[in-house]
Amino acid sequence: MRVSGVKSESSSMQSEKLRCLARDISELGQQGTASSGHDPGPGPGGGLCFADGCRRVDYVLVYHSKRRQSQHRLSVVSNGNVPSQSHTPSRRSTKGDILEAVLEAGLAMEPANELQDKIREEFERGLQEEGLEIEHDKEMRTVRFTRLHVPWSVLSREAELLKIRVPTKKTYQLKEKTGLMGVINSFWTKINQLFQPGVPEPQDPRTRVLSQPFSRDKLHLVIKEHLQKVYEILRRTACTQTCQTMGMFLEMSNLQMPYSFKLDCIASLLAKGVYDSAFPLHDVSFMLHEEWANYGACYKYQPMDLIRKYFGEKIGLYFAWLGVYTQLLIPASALGVAVFLYGCLTVDTNVPSQEMCDERLNFTMCPLCDRVCDYWQLSSICSTARTSYLFDNHATVGFAIFMSLWAAVFLEHWKRRQRCLQHSWDLTGMEDDEVRKSTFPHNVILYRIIVFAVMSMNPDHEAKANVRVTVTTTAVIINLLVVLVLDEIYGAIAAWITELEIPKTESTFEEHVILKAFLLKSMNAFAPVFYVAFFKGRFAGRPGDYVYVFKDFRMEECSPGGCLIEVCIQLGIIMLGKQLIQNNVFEIAIPKLKKMYRTYKEEKDGSADEEDKDSKREPQRWDLDYDLEPYEGLSPEYMEMVIQYGFVTLFVASFPLAPVFALLNNVIEIRLDAAKFVTEIRRPDAVSAKEIGIWYNILSGISKFAVITNAFVISFTSEFIPRMVYQYLYSETGTMHGYTNHTLAYFNTRNFKPGTAPHDTDFDRQLRICRYKDYRDPPWSPEAYQLSKQYWSVLAARLAFVIFFQNLAMFLSMLVAWLIPDVPRSLKEQLKREKALMMDLLLTEEADKQCTQSHPLTTTNNDVVIKCLGEGSSEDVSSIWQVST
Amino acid sequence: MRVSGVKSESSSMQSEKLRCLARDISELGQQGTASSGHDPGPGPGGGLCFADGCRRVDYVLVYHSKRRQSQHRLSVVSNGNVPSQSHTPSRRSTKGDILEAVLEAGLAMEPANELQDKIREEFERGLQEEGLEIEHDKEMRTVRFTRLHVPWSVLSREAELLKIRVPTKKTYQLKEKTGLMGVINSFWTKINQLFQPGVPEPQDPRTRVLSQPFSRDKLHLVIKEHLQKVYEILRRTACTQTCQTMGMFLEMSNLQMPYSFKLDCIASLLAKGVYDSAFPLHDVSFMLHEEWANYGACYKYQPMDLIRKYFGEKIGLYFAWLGVYTQLLIPASALGVAVFLYGCLTVDTNVPSQEMCDERLNFTMCPLCDRVCDYWQLSSICSTARTSYLFDNHATVGFAIFMSLWAAVFLEHWKRRQRCLQHSWDLTGMEDDEVRKSTFPHNVILYRIIVFAVMSMNPDHEAKANVRVTVTTTAVIINLLVVLVLDEIYGAIAAWITELEIPKTESTFEEHVILKAFLLKSMNAFAPVFYVAFFKGRFAGRPGDYVYVFKDFRMEECSPGGCLIEVCIQLGIIMLGKQLIQNNVFEIAIPKLKKMYRTYKEEKDGSADEEDKDSKREPQRWDLDYDLEPYEGLSPEYMEMVIQYGFVTLFVASFPLAPVFALLNNVIEIRLDAAKFVTEIRRPDAVSAKEIGIWYNILSGISKFAVITNAFVISFTSEFIPRMVYQYLYSETGTMHGYTNHTLAYFNTRNFKPGTAPHDTDFDRQLRICRYKDYRDPPWSPEAYQLSKQYWSVLAARLAFVIFFQNLAMFLSMLVAWLIPDVPRSLKEQLKREKALMMDLLLTEEADKQCTQSHPLTTTNNDVVIKCLGEGSSEDVSSIWQVST
Repeated sequence: MRVSGVKSESSSMQSEKLRCLARDISELGQQGTASSGHDPGPGPGGGLCFADGCRRVDYVLVYHSKRRQSQHRLSVVSNGNVPSQSHTPSRRSTKGDILEAVLEAGLAMEPANELQDKIREEFERGLQEEGLEIEHDKEMRTVRFTRLHVPWSVLSREAELLKIRVPTKKTYQLKEKTGLMGVINSFWTKINQLFQPGVPEPQDPRTRVLSQPFSRDKLHLVIKEHLQKVYEILRRTACTQTCQTMGMFLEMSNLQMPYSFKLDCIASLLAKGVYDSAFPLHDVSFMLHEEWANYGACYKYQPMDLIRKYFGEKIGLYFAWLGVYTQLLIPASALGVAVFLYGCLTVDTNVPSQEMCDERLNFTMCPLCDRVCDYWQLSSICSTARTSYLFDNHATVGFAIFMSLWAAVFLEHWKRRQRCLQHSWDLTGMEDDEVRKSTFPHNVILYRIIVFAVMSMNPDHEAKANVRVTVTTTAVIINLLVVLVLDEIYGAIAAWITELEIPKTESTFEEHVILKAFLLKSMNAFAPVFYVAFFKGRFAGRPGDYVYVFKDFRMEECSPGGCLIEVCIQLGIIMLGKQLIQNNVFEIAIPKLKKMYRTYKEEKDGSADEEDKDSKREPQRWDLDYDLEPYEGLSPEYMEMVIQYGFVTLFVASFPLAPVFALLNNVIEIRLDAAKFVTEIRRPDAVSAKEIGIWYNILSGISKFAVITNAFVISFTSEFIPRMVYQYLYSETGTMHGYTNHTLAYFNTRNFKPGTAPHDTDFDRQLRICRYKDYRDPPWSPEAYQLSKQYWSVLAARLAFVIFFQNLAMFLSMLVAWLIPDVPRSLKEQLKREKALMMDLLLTEEADKQCTQSHPLTTTNNDVVIKCLGEGSSEDVSSIWQVST
Repeated sequence: MRVSGVKSESSSMQSEKLRCLARDISELGQQGTASSGHDPGPGPGGGLCFADGCRRVDYVLVYHSKRRQSQHRLSVVSNGNVPSQSHTPSRRSTKGDILEAVLEAGLAMEPANELQDKIREEFERGLQEEGLEIEHDKEMRTVRFTRLHVPWSVLSREAELLKIRVPTKKTYQLKEKTGLMGVINSFWTKINQLFQPGVPEPQDPRTRVLSQPFSRDKLHLVIKEHLQKVYEILRRTACTQTCQTMGMFLEMSNLQMPYSFKLDCIASLLAKGVYDSAFPLHDVSFMLHEEWANYGACYKYQPMDLIRKYFGEKIGLYFAWLGVYTQLLIPASALGVAVFLYGCLTVDTNVPSQEMCDERLNFTMCPLCDRVCDYWQLSSICSTARTSYLFDNHATVGFAIFMSLWAAVFLEHWKRRQRCLQHSWDLTGMEDDEVRKSTFPHNVILYRIIVFAVMSMNPDHEAKANVRVTVTTTAVIINLLVVLVLDEIYGAIAAWITELEIPKTESTFEEHVILKAFLLKSMNAFAPVFYVAFFKGRFAGRPGDYVYVFKDFRMEECSPGGCLIEVCIQLGIIMLGKQLIQNNVFEIAIPKLKKMYRTYKEEKDGSADEEDKDSKREPQRWDLDYDLEPYEGLSPEYMEMVIQYGFVTLFVASFPLAPVFALLNNVIEIRLDAAKFVTEIRRPDAVSAKEIGIWYNILSGISKFAVITNAFVISFTSEFIPRMVYQYLYSETGTMHGYTNHTLAYFNTRNFKPGTAPHDTDFDRQLRICRYKDYRDPPWSPEAYQLSKQYWSVLAARLAFVIFFQNLAMFLSMLVAWLIPDVPRSLKEQLKREKALMMDLLLTEEADKQCTQSHPLTTTNNDVVIKCLGEGSSEDVSSIWQVST
């Protein structure tokens, strides 16, 4: 971050700072406490404050002023004092004026600009009536900034209405574990200490602070050191929600107004073009840079509390989720590598691949294409067979079951983590804010869906390139067909669902769009893999009776080594190649290029604007932040990770190394995302959220689907079942010897259709019998070339395995979900403790109340409470509580 | 209910009633309101009040007094006024005295009786210090009653601490639907009116009352008419919870006390035998009798609000659940009957059963047992084949899928209903009370488990009888083995889980016991059906190579008509017979007998007790209630219904009439249960609960398991798949003709093992070939009697169908669960509305506060608020709210 502008100014700011503090103290004093004031941040100046260097800029609204601005009001710094007679009930008085302005504008056919100016003025006047303080630019420039400061009085009022929980004076100690558990625990804490970010902990880690919904009457419960924290919490949360509550009331009282005239929220003004953008200012701390957005910290835990403090709960939850996911990938990776190594170590003892490599067995295979291809020796694909075994051995089956459980554990673990974060971030009592979505009419949904559809139809180029490595024309056609057909189906479903209910709230709307986008994206990402794993070569026919498409093209088959190895290659390329390219090219290079282009364009626009040229001055923080990329939501970040999660879980049975590659990618990804959020985009609004929402459902859906895909991969793509069936049903020795011979059917070369036999051959021209991989009756049987009894028994075994695997994995997952309680036991105990303490607090207050009634004193302060309790039995209270300071 | 005792006394009670009202008013007056008092119930007297005829009996504690009671204190009616200096903090002072008493007792080696007397005295003194009022019996009898009255001051304090929500003065109107929806809606309401119970609705059904956590400061928000209701709510809920919160605090402050000395709650005193029983008194209303516990009302909805008011939320939820279940059985029954009728109508066009009845086809079947059985003609089982078709046709498959969806819809619908009840019963803000379970040590768990195990091992007699109808010795042995083995496994699991965590709370404990009991009960109930559906006859072997158990007994086979018809018969008997017998014998006759025995025993005991004889007086309400059966929890009621739900869903593919029988049973069951709760058992404590808890999980588990069982029933028990395979894979004409021949394998009679061929036969002695039902190669094939290719292909088809059905049903269920939102849209809108109104109320109070600050007046009353709002913009407020009265 460029903060050079700050330092040059900071010398003369000392006296200013003192003045600010004094002001804050007096403001707080009005609220009935004697505590000293809050610190308005890292220091006034540097573009973080109003021109008085005192009131901090909490929010910035940006608009482009058009040329004709003669009648534009030039009030520079509005008075912070709001007319007292309209302090609170005026909240509802804006609507009439706006309505008038809009109607007037409509009647007088004013140009859109002027209408927008009017709406803006009206809106800002409304904000001032609400108690917010506003500063405009001194200079006349094309890009104009409206800076907002939310004073303590407004913050505290909103906080009380929204029941925001803040820490109080009350603390309590967690019980220390004793005995063996205690030793293990302290050992574990010490080990973990190595990976903790270097953020100074405020106090003893076992001390917990009791929190309460904020109330102005109970400011005395907040200890001095926490006041800064309380102020920060309120500033962050109440600020962005002020206009939401406003919007709600306007809407409540404007039921008879026409739909499009409703003034909801800043979002609606942005949508109407009244403002260009709206964002809070960056004031990133050194700690966040050093301990988070830094590759050097990539082996450490993330400083979650700092992230949450700076970006709010929604983004905090994303990074917490990413952290949990990455952490849990470690055991999965370790086991995946172990499975791979097991394959490497046992490949030489594996009978089927030995048989395939054994030249003495001399299997002459039928040609792989018509006329031009020759017969070939099975031993020529020895190396592929050996490689295939690395990914297709007994251990893989176990690993696939393990990964089903892993997915269940991951989801449960995340639920617990989320629950803990909800508690430590004081979100438990919070209700989900349903932001009304009234500015997006019905057709916007369709538009957004179409945009997403187009986006999904046009996949990343390198993905296409990867696909091309293995998939031939047919695959591409099928891929396209699948996407097209599914898109058609999806379109119908989307239209149907949308008809069913027009989503009423922003969150429902967002969920719908995310879900649809995910369906399309995942279709596109997974379809090629599905094709190779389950369809390629399944309908190719047999020698002498191949299936042809467009009369001349034989349906493609997998390479002679089997389809599994092709799936492996495909997944390897996607996991390793695509992710690294995506990380480097898309997430680093492209934003840089975009920014360069943007700066270039701004400069070009700027040079045309002569009147701005003379007003060139040192850029303020809002100028710098405005130059950054706007924040566009978390959906793309989540989407990328969720698709990766899909690759990790859906096809893990065919590629056990997927978790390792995902882990490597994510360790980098976290820091990349961090750097992006801290330095490359505008600071996002601190939105509070209790959960990761629809993404959890998507993850849970993928996990369930993964059970089925893995069951089918093991049954139908790998050779596991045929081998088992051979060993236990057909092998005479009970070993795998003779397996290769058993899987190859016989073909009489005289049965080639005319013109399809090899034109020229290195083999004996009189060759009568060639072999091909299928279970069919031999030419000399009465049912020549019909599917043999072996085929049906293997098919039955495959299907039985699918049922067995699916139900076992589902049962185990459910068992895991049931055995792991959603709320960790330690948290449960903590909650119980806090509830009891809270009850005791209430009882104390009760006693206190009766006490003051009997001892009428002028003021209520702590001395009286203590004295009063002393009369009853206060020793219990003091023994339970450790009242700090 | 015998209420004759009441009427005779009621004449002289008028003046008493007036006195009570005056007392109540003065009591309320102390709380700072001028509202008139509450009505202490249906009228004083009749054993519902203390001897002063004024203070109502809220709770009764019963104990048996032992012979030596010379030092027993005889204070008759304790003073209602509590010493003021120890009003609240004394809550924690009981423990010291108790501890002393206990230790003293221990040292002096006093007999257990005296210790119990001491504990009892100490406990009752504790209650009085808490503010409760106590009345003892005047007479000296063996059975002694301690009657409690909880005065308003205690009620209101507890209510405030527990944040119990009560209705306020604020009401609002639901929007009336317009247009077509409005017409449909009003039509629907009119139709529904026919089924509504005849309970007078208090107001306009579209008017909703806003509720708020109870606060003594805000009593002015409660309107006069609601005060009675508020009093009832508080009385009901706060009363039973008083000792729980007490218990919690004692526990909090007694951490250093030995485990068994902790005084927790009444439950603990009951467990220690200090008291025999504890219950509130019945004061059932005429309405509840007439509109609920009455067969005449069985076509009507249940009066849910009345039930909840009388029994509390937990029991209310049970009946609500039972109602929803019964209601949703109606469409399932209708479709089930339709499927059965479809079978009846198409049985004559069904080719396979026609072929089986066609004597001209002349299939000679192999004998069904060794030596004594003869060959037989297939056409002889014609009628069984036709009956079998009634339950095993194409429509059944569709019905099975429908029932999977039905189960999903049922669960979702119940979630919505529960959510609505939570809202209308003001449970939304309530936290789940975790009742501490410290009096049940570890070994009690094991004991209870053992008791349940024994109960489950000893099933109802008529169930055994039913089983005997179809299941032979082998089945019983296998059944027993299954139960034994599973019991062993279950014992290990239970021990393991119990080792994992000793459940800390009463609710967790209850859940564990329920779950284990359910597993055993269901094992016992469903095992015979599972045996017949999936195992019977599967391992019987083939002619010439039968499987023998204990050398001589051939494994039993299903009757020649197939296993499905046996499953049908079994289910039919269970559903119809068992349920009716259970309802009539177990739920009506046995309690009557028990009561008779109890009365007889009491009388016998009483006659020995001479000193009681002279004190015979007219029985009071508490005497009458004490004579009733104690309430033993809802678990048996739920268990019965959940097992029934299992029969309805698990085997619906084999017996589509199950829902009808369940429906018939439940219509009676509801009223039976109602009558039982109202007249045959003591009034249960009003326990609040937000959900039906573990039962929901069990239902959801059954529904999931049902998908699998139905898939297997259709695939393996019914003939659906072989028919399909024949028609599409083997039939030369594409019709079902020849199917019967195709399913019968050939057996050469010369291959009978020595001594197993029929001894004497009506058929040709030279008969060479007989037929049997299996897919095996014929004697003349090279692989004679081996499983044929048809066998494997049919098996593959069966398994493929299982996979297809299971995944389709699961997907559809998930879709249903996703499409039906958990919170109904109307409720969502209502909640939003209430939130906005609440916010507005807060804002008004805010304005009011600032107003009173600027207009310093002596008191805060409504006039000031209105006047004050008038200065701001109050027109919006009044337009939104309809402030009633």
